[in-house]
Amino acid sequence: MHRTKIKIAEDALDANTTIAQANRADFDRADVRVVNMMSAPGAGKTSLLERVLNDLHDVRVAVLEGDVQGSLDADRLASLHVPVTQINTDPGFGGECHLDANMVRSAIPSLPLADIDLLVIENVGNLVCPAEFKVGEDLRVMVASVTEGEDKPLKYPLMFRTCEVVLVNKIDLLPYVDFDLEKCAERARSVRRGVEILALSAKTGEGFAAWHEWLRR
Amino acid sequence: MHRTKIKIAEDALDANTTIAQANRADFDRADVRVVNMMSAPGAGKTSLLERVLNDLHDVRVAVLEGDVQGSLDADRLASLHVPVTQINTDPGFGGECHLDANMVRSAIPSLPLADIDLLVIENVGNLVCPAEFKVGEDLRVMVASVTEGEDKPLKYPLMFRTCEVVLVNKIDLLPYVDFDLEKCAERARSVRRGVEILALSAKTGEGFAAWHEWLRR
Repeated sequence: MHRTKIKIAEDALDANTTIAQANRADFDRADVRVVNMMSAPGAGKTSLLERVLNDLHDVRVAVLEGDVQGSLDADRLASLHVPVTQINTDPGFGGECHLDANMVRSAIPSLPLADIDLLVIENVGNLVCPAEFKVGEDLRVMVASVTEGEDKPLKYPLMFRTCEVVLVNKIDLLPYVDFDLEKCAERARSVRRGVEILALSAKTGEGFAAWHEWLRR
Repeated sequence: MHRTKIKIAEDALDANTTIAQANRADFDRADVRVVNMMSAPGAGKTSLLERVLNDLHDVRVAVLEGDVQGSLDADRLASLHVPVTQINTDPGFGGECHLDANMVRSAIPSLPLADIDLLVIENVGNLVCPAEFKVGEDLRVMVASVTEGEDKPLKYPLMFRTCEVVLVNKIDLLPYVDFDLEKCAERARSVRRGVEILALSAKTGEGFAAWHEWLRR
C-alpha cells in the first residue's frame, strides 16, 4: 500500500519534470530567466518583490503569482505597473499546496515573454511540496524569516537543499527575537553545501544591494 | 484530466474520513480529548506547547508530533517529561506536507491513552493540506503569528474555516510589525463566523490564562 503510494508519487513527479523541461525550453527560447520563489506563509515574498520591482529599473520583470485562492498579492504587485498573472490552485476541495509544471504551462500564453528579461514565479506559501515540483525555473530562491526560528533547514531539508539562494528576511526584527543568524546559515549549509545566504529586510531595505546584484547576474 | 484529479482527491479524502472516525472512536472509548494543532512553519506551535505543558498541571497531556523529518520538536517536548510520539511523513520523495488519519492510526498503539486526558497532535507546519485531512480530533486549533500579516484568513480560508480556535501568537512583537489584530480577527470571522480568537505570546506568557481555561473546558 505504502509502496504503491510512493510509486504513484514518483510517476507524477516524472511527468511533472517532463512538462517543466518544456516550460524551460519556452523560457530559454524567449531569452527569459526564471526564478521560482518559495517560502512559508507570511515570510515576506510579496514585500520583497515590491521592493525589487520598485528598485530594479534596468531589468524588465513580470510576475506569475501562485495562491490557493484570491489575488491579494497579485493586486499589490500590479499596482506597481508590472505584468502580473495569477494562478489559483483551488480546484474545489481545499486547493493544491504548490504550483506544478502544468499550472505554469497553462499560464505561459498569457505571459509577455517577448517583453521581459526576468520572470519571478511566486509559489504558494509552503515549505514542503513546492520543493518537490520543478516548474521550469533557472533558479530557486527561498525566503526564510528570522521570526520562524533557525531550525527550519533541519525540519524542511528538501526546500533548503534544492535552492540556490536563501534570503533571510525581516532582519529588522533581530533585536526582538531569539534567532542566531550564523547558526541558521550553518544549518542551511549543512543541508546544501555552498548555498548563497543573503540577510535583508523588505521593510527597511537593508541588504537589498547584494540581492539586486545577484538578480542582475 | 482535471476532473479525474478532483475525483481521486475526493475518494482519498473519503477514505481518510472513515479512518478518522475510527481514530475518534478509539479516543472516545479511552475518554481522551484530542486537539489537532496546525500552523505555518515557525508560528510557534512547539513553544506554545512547552508553556502549556509547564503550566497545566491538572490535565494529563500527551503529544503526537508530526514532522517531515527529524525529531527536534519532539525532543524539546520530551524534555518536559510528557509522553511524546513522533510521526515522520517522509517516505523517500520529499515528504508529505500533512498528517492524515492513517498516520495517526498507526501511532495509536504507542500512545498511553489510558493515562492521559488530552492528546495534542502537532501537525506539519503548513496552512493548506492539514486543513483537508481530519485525523480523529475533537477540536482544531490554528496558530497564526503576528509576523505573518493579517491577510492569512483570506489567503488560506479553509484552514481558518475548519478551526474552532485561532491563537494569534507572538503579540510581544506587535510594536515592531505592521499587524492590525482587529483587522485579522475580522477577516478570520468573515471566513468562519464566531470563531474563538485568543491573542497571546508564547515568549512572555501574556494571554495564556484564557487559553488554559479554554483547554480545561
